[in-house]
Amino acid sequence: MRMRSGHFVMADKGWPGCAKSLKGVILDMCGVLYDSGEGDGVAIPGSIEAVRRLKESDLQLRFCTNETQATREKFVAKLQRLGFDISASEVFPPAPAAIAVLKDRSLRPHLLVHDGLLPEFDGVDKTNPNCVIIGDAAEHFSYQNLNEAFRVLIGLEKPVLFSLGQGKYYKETDGLKLDVGVYMKALEYACDLKAEVIGKPSPTFFQSVLNDMGLQSHEALMIGDDLLNDVGGAQHCGMKGVQVRTGKYRPSDERHPTVMADGTVDNLAQAVELILNQRRR
Amino acid sequence: MRMRSGHFVMADKGWPGCAKSLKGVILDMCGVLYDSGEGDGVAIPGSIEAVRRLKESDLQLRFCTNETQATREKFVAKLQRLGFDISASEVFPPAPAAIAVLKDRSLRPHLLVHDGLLPEFDGVDKTNPNCVIIGDAAEHFSYQNLNEAFRVLIGLEKPVLFSLGQGKYYKETDGLKLDVGVYMKALEYACDLKAEVIGKPSPTFFQSVLNDMGLQSHEALMIGDDLLNDVGGAQHCGMKGVQVRTGKYRPSDERHPTVMADGTVDNLAQAVELILNQRRR
Repeated sequence: MRMRSGHFVMADKGWPGCAKSLKGVILDMCGVLYDSGEGDGVAIPGSIEAVRRLKESDLQLRFCTNETQATREKFVAKLQRLGFDISASEVFPPAPAAIAVLKDRSLRPHLLVHDGLLPEFDGVDKTNPNCVIIGDAAEHFSYQNLNEAFRVLIGLEKPVLFSLGQGKYYKETDGLKLDVGVYMKALEYACDLKAEVIGKPSPTFFQSVLNDMGLQSHEALMIGDDLLNDVGGAQHCGMKGVQVRTGKYRPSDERHPTVMADGTVDNLAQAVELILNQRRR
Repeated sequence: MRMRSGHFVMADKGWPGCAKSLKGVILDMCGVLYDSGEGDGVAIPGSIEAVRRLKESDLQLRFCTNETQATREKFVAKLQRLGFDISASEVFPPAPAAIAVLKDRSLRPHLLVHDGLLPEFDGVDKTNPNCVIIGDAAEHFSYQNLNEAFRVLIGLEKPVLFSLGQGKYYKETDGLKLDVGVYMKALEYACDLKAEVIGKPSPTFFQSVLNDMGLQSHEALMIGDDLLNDVGGAQHCGMKGVQVRTGKYRPSDERHPTVMADGTVDNLAQAVELILNQRRR
């Protein structure tokens, strides 16, 4: 009974014991709710029902994503087509946060982003750019486009690079794909600068979601498939972080040298089952 | 007369006083001899004559380049068309050095290099690759090709990445272009690894040129347009390093926080003039 008694000692701090005192849950989207790929991608089994169960509970629910291939509206519409009960006001992607920063600092961006994201920046002055914003541009990360962004940066007296996330790669239905963070590192090296990350794991970004729920960090739990950006980022802000074994999860994540998830579960459905069970006790 | 007497104190150690005791000179090529661009590019004024003068002197002369867009033979043929008296045996590019490393360690490469470099690897076994080699692939650095290299690396138990140089950018006639180092950093970040650099500024690479001349490092001088890879790399090996104000040179190089050239000259012609004058004294 040793393990079980150990479990009880940790009951109100560890996972899943901590679920009892939670007030809100933040979900990553790609790799947790669905796998992206051709068309809309595919829902991960059990995740549509898991979101419904969370919504029916007394927990607040928000979605925090580094998705930058579409506007928030089109992105949410896709999730709805897949069967998820999600509305735009519950979803926090990097682009709207970036636009707020641009306004705040009177910056005019050169954009290296996916075509689908461009409408989000329709009202933004992009003439004579004095900063560069990169998102998950995928096929648009051509040699020519990266050169163009580089030339804008190297031509500025004080180059400013914003990266919408810093993910290394993500999983589509046909395999792993390089993410924006890889190109952020490329431009950082080329221009001898440090990018400002807008999106996970930026503490400012997580904080804006907590603010929206009116919660403190210890009252919220983040569930994601990315050990560094979801789990590590949330923990860095004082939240609990649980990793799902779907999406970009790799077994080696469970023996990472610096980041350890508070819990690891097979998928979102299992995480929600554990949370709701715990709260019923 | 203070400056002049200061000059005499440094005469046999500093630049250009050190030229008196030199036994060999190593020249970078792109940005020193010529600017690349459409077709063969253009010779930098005075550089053809400067190479001729060095060859007529008692100094040994070698060319050390991170050029990886063509085989050594085709590359040298281009230089000859531009008017330079250079033969293949005097030129040290990264690819032949890489092939030696592959043989030595029984590695089979996945190549992400310029089409022009492929024939150099004709005799190399590339089936079931257990390492990745990247060179200055230019337009071939597409999202798809970088993904492909990434997937090979992430699929290996012990991923090995060789980078033919680690340059940030170079200058073509129509502007600055991103170099292989930028993509090296991208893959390093994506796969959580450290690439092995073959080419400048790798000490092994500089040493192979010194060995070919039968010289010790203090007997040789490197002249290049790249402060970090030519000048810093050579200095790291115990050579003197002089920067030319042609090619990718930028005024900020002269106030770099960590690397200071032993001398800075307007171009190769001026460097050679100073060297030969010094040796006549």
